[in-house]
Amino acid sequence: MPTILGQNQYGKAETRVVKVVRDGDTHHLKDLSVSVALSGDMDAVHYSGDNANVLPTDTTKNTVYAFAKERGVESAEHFGIELARHFVASQESIHRARVRIEEYAWERLAGHSFARKGQETRVAEITYDGARWQVVAGLKDLTVLNSTNSEFWGYAKDRYTTLQEAYDRILATDVSARWRYGWDGAAADGSAAAASAPAPDWNRSYEETRRHILAAFAGTYSRSLQQTLYAMGTRVVEHRDEIEEIRFSLPNKHHFLVDLEPFGLTNDVADGAVYFAADRPYGLIEATVLRDGADARIPVDTTTL
Amino acid sequence: MPTILGQNQYGKAETRVVKVVRDGDTHHLKDLSVSVALSGDMDAVHYSGDNANVLPTDTTKNTVYAFAKERGVESAEHFGIELARHFVASQESIHRARVRIEEYAWERLAGHSFARKGQETRVAEITYDGARWQVVAGLKDLTVLNSTNSEFWGYAKDRYTTLQEAYDRILATDVSARWRYGWDGAAADGSAAAASAPAPDWNRSYEETRRHILAAFAGTYSRSLQQTLYAMGTRVVEHRDEIEEIRFSLPNKHHFLVDLEPFGLTNDVADGAVYFAADRPYGLIEATVLRDGADARIPVDTTTL
Amino acid sequence: MPTILGQNQYGKAETRVVKVVRDGDTHHLKDLSVSVALSGDMDAVHYSGDNANVLPTDTTKNTVYAFAKERGVESAEHFGIELARHFVASQESIHRARVRIEEYAWERLAGHSFARKGQETRVAEITYDGARWQVVAGLKDLTVLNSTNSEFWGYAKDRYTTLQEAYDRILATDVSARWRYGWDGAAADGSAAAASAPAPDWNRSYEETRRHILAAFAGTYSRSLQQTLYAMGTRVVEHRDEIEEIRFSLPNKHHFLVDLEPFGLTNDVADGAVYFAADRPYGLIEATVLRDGADARIPVDTTTL
Amino acid sequence: MPTILGQNQYGKAETRVVKVVRDGDTHHLKDLSVSVALSGDMDAVHYSGDNANVLPTDTTKNTVYAFAKERGVESAEHFGIELARHFVASQESIHRARVRIEEYAWERLAGHSFARKGQETRVAEITYDGARWQVVAGLKDLTVLNSTNSEFWGYAKDRYTTLQEAYDRILATDVSARWRYGWDGAAADGSAAAASAPAPDWNRSYEETRRHILAAFAGTYSRSLQQTLYAMGTRVVEHRDEIEEIRFSLPNKHHFLVDLEPFGLTNDVADGAVYFAADRPYGLIEATVLRDGADARIPVDTTTL
Repeated sequence: MPTILGQNQYGKAETRVVKVVRDGDTHHLKDLSVSVALSGDMDAVHYSGDNANVLPTDTTKNTVYAFAKERGVESAEHFGIELARHFVASQESIHRARVRIEEYAWERLAGHSFARKGQETRVAEITYDGARWQVVAGLKDLTVLNSTNSEFWGYAKDRYTTLQEAYDRILATDVSARWRYGWDGAAADGSAAAASAPAPDWNRSYEETRRHILAAFAGTYSRSLQQTLYAMGTRVVEHRDEIEEIRFSLPNKHHFLVDLEPFGLTNDVADGAVYFAADRPYGLIEATVLRDGADARIPVDTTTL
Repeated sequence: MPTILGQNQYGKAETRVVKVVRDGDTHHLKDLSVSVALSGDMDAVHYSGDNANVLPTDTTKNTVYAFAKERGVESAEHFGIELARHFVASQESIHRARVRIEEYAWERLAGHSFARKGQETRVAEITYDGARWQVVAGLKDLTVLNSTNSEFWGYAKDRYTTLQEAYDRILATDVSARWRYGWDGAAADGSAAAASAPAPDWNRSYEETRRHILAAFAGTYSRSLQQTLYAMGTRVVEHRDEIEEIRFSLPNKHHFLVDLEPFGLTNDVADGAVYFAADRPYGLIEATVLRDGADARIPVDTTTL
Repeated sequence: MPTILGQNQYGKAETRVVKVVRDGDTHHLKDLSVSVALSGDMDAVHYSGDNANVLPTDTTKNTVYAFAKERGVESAEHFGIELARHFVASQESIHRARVRIEEYAWERLAGHSFARKGQETRVAEITYDGARWQVVAGLKDLTVLNSTNSEFWGYAKDRYTTLQEAYDRILATDVSARWRYGWDGAAADGSAAAASAPAPDWNRSYEETRRHILAAFAGTYSRSLQQTLYAMGTRVVEHRDEIEEIRFSLPNKHHFLVDLEPFGLTNDVADGAVYFAADRPYGLIEATVLRDGADARIPVDTTTL
Repeated sequence: MPTILGQNQYGKAETRVVKVVRDGDTHHLKDLSVSVALSGDMDAVHYSGDNANVLPTDTTKNTVYAFAKERGVESAEHFGIELARHFVASQESIHRARVRIEEYAWERLAGHSFARKGQETRVAEITYDGARWQVVAGLKDLTVLNSTNSEFWGYAKDRYTTLQEAYDRILATDVSARWRYGWDGAAADGSAAAASAPAPDWNRSYEETRRHILAAFAGTYSRSLQQTLYAMGTRVVEHRDEIEEIRFSLPNKHHFLVDLEPFGLTNDVADGAVYFAADRPYGLIEATVLRDGADARIPVDTTTL
């Protein structure tokens, strides 16, 4: 046979589960979208349609709902760990599970009334192969803007360069960040027993990391979005020992000063300026910031030569 | 000629303007998407492509930017009034202007650093025909949820009814609301001079209306989404004298209790339940609530027999 | 009571139904999204949450599925007529039904294999009040482009006009069109018995109307998008006796000639030009074209002073 | 310093370029969205905001437009190769360029009139490091459906399995496929001179690969979506010598048979059945099919333990 099967995975994507916990008249809400991808002995189903090793994706969906009831949702990361362990431990044909979770935040209006909080989404990805764990957490669509303290000049120029240097510009981006925890479940003696080492406090770690990202964005006088990115990453790695690396993908959401001269108006940044917020194209700045000595494991989302 | 030209309008849609106002190191931000629609003596351009009466849509875009600089953006409503008056007053061929504005909210991180606040959007629509004004304000994509205090039973049943009655369900919706102000610019003596009557405080009115909507949603023990809608509308009309009518469009975002019995689990609402958040189909509840004696002018978005 | 209930309607939106009909090994596919809105005696549910007059939206969903089986889907319009009649005829509290349908087209790859055909969507809206019918059909997201035979010059100019005249430009739009049929179900003697008059061939009428729209777009030498719009509408009304009016909403999808002079290049339209396809803002041209003597009933989607 | 910079890249994303070529009254259209990502000596900009090595993303945008004029757009792949070579060859600080292109298809209505053809998008990704090339082509959002010849049974069952076996179901998916060409620019003697080896006919290869994917989807009697995926991949690799591997990502777009029994109706697939087309959750089947002996280089889009 001239062709072979390469890496493959399957599962149920975007199972939307809402868990309510009642504490008297005060309710607590967890709102998740859970996507499961399973890998293992899957040659037969690809080659001949023999489904004997295939736990249906409908079952992975049911499992998400049942676990939300049986085990609760303490955090996205903990819930993903419970699910990933279950699939690898209970199905002989499954050798690896990856669970991706999006979590939508709500703020309380009253004891059991809530309003969706922002367009920002918390994300988590848990991977388990029966021996070691990898936990990547993050957020996306956190839109931020500095209306000054941003410059861009001194750049390389070639035949196609027409950009004017900017000494006071708007810097705006939708922060997408993913950070990897050092925790892999291995005990201190290096034995890779599944989840024998104590795990970080996932919710607190998330809140603190988010806070550092915002503080670094607001506090950095920026000569390029790359510099701001690195400042955000460094601040996280320096303050959060449990994090080994963090990767950002930052669109440069251009706000162009409108030329008002034809109308006899000056549009000076120092005096209340008017900007055109452009959709496309946009700059896109991506980088990983690592703790010195750490391995880079968050995928770069690019092909490798 | 067997065909004639009916209602028509044209203009530039979704001009994205960001205005920054500096007060020392503290900056203020207005972030708008402005859509202008103009009507008037437009027969020639339709019949023969004669553009003599057509102010280019590019010019309406330029005007938005110039006005943001010259006149500032005190509120979406005030900015729309300035624009609408300008087009009708300055172009003989333009008899009516409608300006629609979406405003995106930002919260301050520091003096000149901001984060986008929610997915909720403030909207305003200003219409002016040279004599009278109509101002409709509103909001959309304000997602809210009550995790209890919602029932649905006692409904009509026919051959196709299979729905089980619910005595404790989640009620969730994306609030879309539009309210019309009584202000039409006419002076107290009835003379229709353009904007001779004092206008409401648009920003304060918006904030208060939004607050009443949320309070009514959270505070209503609901036997149907219609009842909740009417409670929200009544509360607004009763508390805000400047508002004549309010129309809601409320998707019923169904959260179905998952059947966990096949797994030996009970999924009782009283004990922390698990729900499936469905996308489609969804119920859609729409209604206008009017001050007694007021005319209904907010369009119903439906054809009329 | 200082507030009253105005126009209201409710129902299930976006019920996604796929009907397969087998003719031996050749299958036929209908793929619809059906939204039902019902009005009638609905005071009690709004005022007090009394649901006795409320047929659940879940039931309207069930009815869509049952009718697809029992009565088939000959055309979106016919299916909508069946549904609208049913709700008004069978529920005393329902006085009016509006059914909106989106239909997604598929092309056959083989006897029972299909590929989705385009992003264009066929739409239909059927309204019935127990006496007369109104049928509006249409399409949306039909993206078309002329790479020449479009000009724009001779327009009005004011202080804010900077646009350069164009003598050979790209004209591109996403056609959104809705046309109203004269058929209202009334017999020739004027008696308004429900659907006693023979109805048009909905599918053939749709295909022919679409063909005329495309032919007019391609065949019109355009001095403005308004002229092209009117040419499309006139052609439809002149060729299709069953249609009383047609309304278009046409975004002017701007394609700007890129300035290549800084790079020593000329970007001449006559010689293979390069364009920047802009997203926002865009011009938006809307108008109704009517058969002389017809009433305009397709809503303009704007507030009225 | 406890933190270091890991993989990073930057560039302009989604530059929307439309190129028209005139051949008398017959025009030809190329409609692309081009995203460029550059890597190289970028430490300084991240550490201190020194932009000396940073060619502005605005310049990469200009280059896209200038190249479209100067060199034309023979195919997405060829255009991407020209761009990637330029950035690496002309900027000492740039060591690697990745160019991603989406191409939107148009069909001709008349000589210079066009309609957008489908929602399907052609994609290409070209990567170049100064020595070797990697070209990945593909397509996305090609929605296909078989209304029979699909089963799913004999699967693994556990405590959470409730799915009923299916012997005649709808199989529908949005095909997303990416295939990697063996061509890397190296001459037959292995010397890695940039692009010294003759390249495939990119457009013909794309059309043929697409044709094979559709033929395999339509022609495979399927016992699982995995089996259909493998059949599509095998057919491509066996018929197209220039392709080394192909990776699919296939959502299983569930069409559930509606239970019509409560209404006294049977909903039998053999007799024209009615289905509910679900949005979420959906199964997601992903796999690579490789030519025997080839390396898997298309990223799996998953973290690795």
